[in-house]
Amino acid sequence: MAASQSLLSLLLLLSLLSVAISQSLIRIPSDRKASSVDDDLYCDSWRLSVETNNAGSWIKIPSRCQRYVEQYTIGDRYLSDSEIVAFDSLTFAKTVKVAGDGKDAWIFDIDETLLTNLPYYALHGFGSEPFDEAAFDEWVELAQAPALSASMNLYKELKQMGFTIFLLTGRSEHQRNVTGKNLLFAGYNNWERLILREPSDQGKSATLYKSQKRLELVNEGYRIHGNSGDQWSDLLGFAMSERSFKLPNPMYYIQ
Amino acid sequence: MAASQSLLSLLLLLSLLSVAISQSLIRIPSDRKASSVDDDLYCDSWRLSVETNNAGSWIKIPSRCQRYVEQYTIGDRYLSDSEIVAFDSLTFAKTVKVAGDGKDAWIFDIDETLLTNLPYYALHGFGSEPFDEAAFDEWVELAQAPALSASMNLYKELKQMGFTIFLLTGRSEHQRNVTGKNLLFAGYNNWERLILREPSDQGKSATLYKSQKRLELVNEGYRIHGNSGDQWSDLLGFAMSERSFKLPNPMYYIQ
Repeated sequence: MAASQSLLSLLLLLSLLSVAISQSLIRIPSDRKASSVDDDLYCDSWRLSVETNNAGSWIKIPSRCQRYVEQYTIGDRYLSDSEIVAFDSLTFAKTVKVAGDGKDAWIFDIDETLLTNLPYYALHGFGSEPFDEAAFDEWVELAQAPALSASMNLYKELKQMGFTIFLLTGRSEHQRNVTGKNLLFAGYNNWERLILREPSDQGKSATLYKSQKRLELVNEGYRIHGNSGDQWSDLLGFAMSERSFKLPNPMYYIQ
Repeated sequence: MAASQSLLSLLLLLSLLSVAISQSLIRIPSDRKASSVDDDLYCDSWRLSVETNNAGSWIKIPSRCQRYVEQYTIGDRYLSDSEIVAFDSLTFAKTVKVAGDGKDAWIFDIDETLLTNLPYYALHGFGSEPFDEAAFDEWVELAQAPALSASMNLYKELKQMGFTIFLLTGRSEHQRNVTGKNLLFAGYNNWERLILREPSDQGKSATLYKSQKRLELVNEGYRIHGNSGDQWSDLLGFAMSERSFKLPNPMYYIQ
């Protein structure tokens, strides 16, 4: 009976303790947990600084943010953020009077815009490792990057509305075949033109290269209404589109 | 003894249940909780769409985001986000070679940049109510808006580094005295010039008005290195600064 009462007391204590913990009445001191909360707050602000271009140029994600970026990209938030970008893009597209002469244009970047390279970055620290061009080129050769689903829906809607679609990528001319193959594999088709870096474009900043290519389109008589890209260098410079749409990318930065 | 055993079993069950709940092994169905999680995810994405200018023009915050915006602004996140903007600004400022001729300029917006009107917006739904110009003007007349602490630190550092500070606000010329009084009350001083909307500027978009004023500074020989503002209309247009810094503001949008 005495043993039973002791057990009873122990269980009562355990029970109350569990309820208290579950309702956060008692906080268990844990450096790891506290630091994780701090990291989340910091990394959330860091990500905003990147997405608004306040951060400017950066080489790799802060080491304390690796877990955060992983959770962001493979969880609901990346998906949700991308979907609102597509929603905003479509909302604007609906205000454009498409003339029917084929000159109403929309530009898409490819990597982290139409396609997602998450399968690659998941194996390479989600941007916490220095960029390995050789390894990434091998991944590109596989032509198996899946579509970013929000962009796929937007792409199809814009096509239906009569926009002429240009794909403007930092990938090189020698990657034309695998890039086209990957786009088809992912479900994209009927783009007007796929523009890649020619040998004469090598060494140019992405901002300059993409601006020059946009200017060529403008000189051909295209009206560039929208431009979708995950890098500010996809969107800024000259011959800018009427409206630009910045897709999220907390993994890497391209000048 | 039987009663004691029943109690024992009950407590054992309760104990296990509590542990299970505390460790999220069992999810308690709760519409309110689920919807709150959905709202947080949506509102987080909505806020990003606003901060990146993807959303374009908007009138008031989505009604489902009122609680979210309140928690964001009065909690740690607004502070943390503002601090990283100040950090990014300072990091860039340190790369500028200040010539010592007084022509190296930095522009600050005032509302939600140097000063925070949170005491006002806390009483007006954090952006969920339509903008009430008369009520806001009454608040401005009080001249009691506190400094946004992150901007205060940046302001002082830039002054010490020798930058010439211009304050460029959408407030009107007739609010010059109360605005100066409020800035001094908040702890700012020694700005070069406070630029407000003159009667001839009324009716212009903020982007046009601010671009024209920046162009006047450029024509006076100033080199505008940095520009800090919570609205994209503070930053975009022509005669843009070398680098722009977007402070967070999920409460309102100015064209």
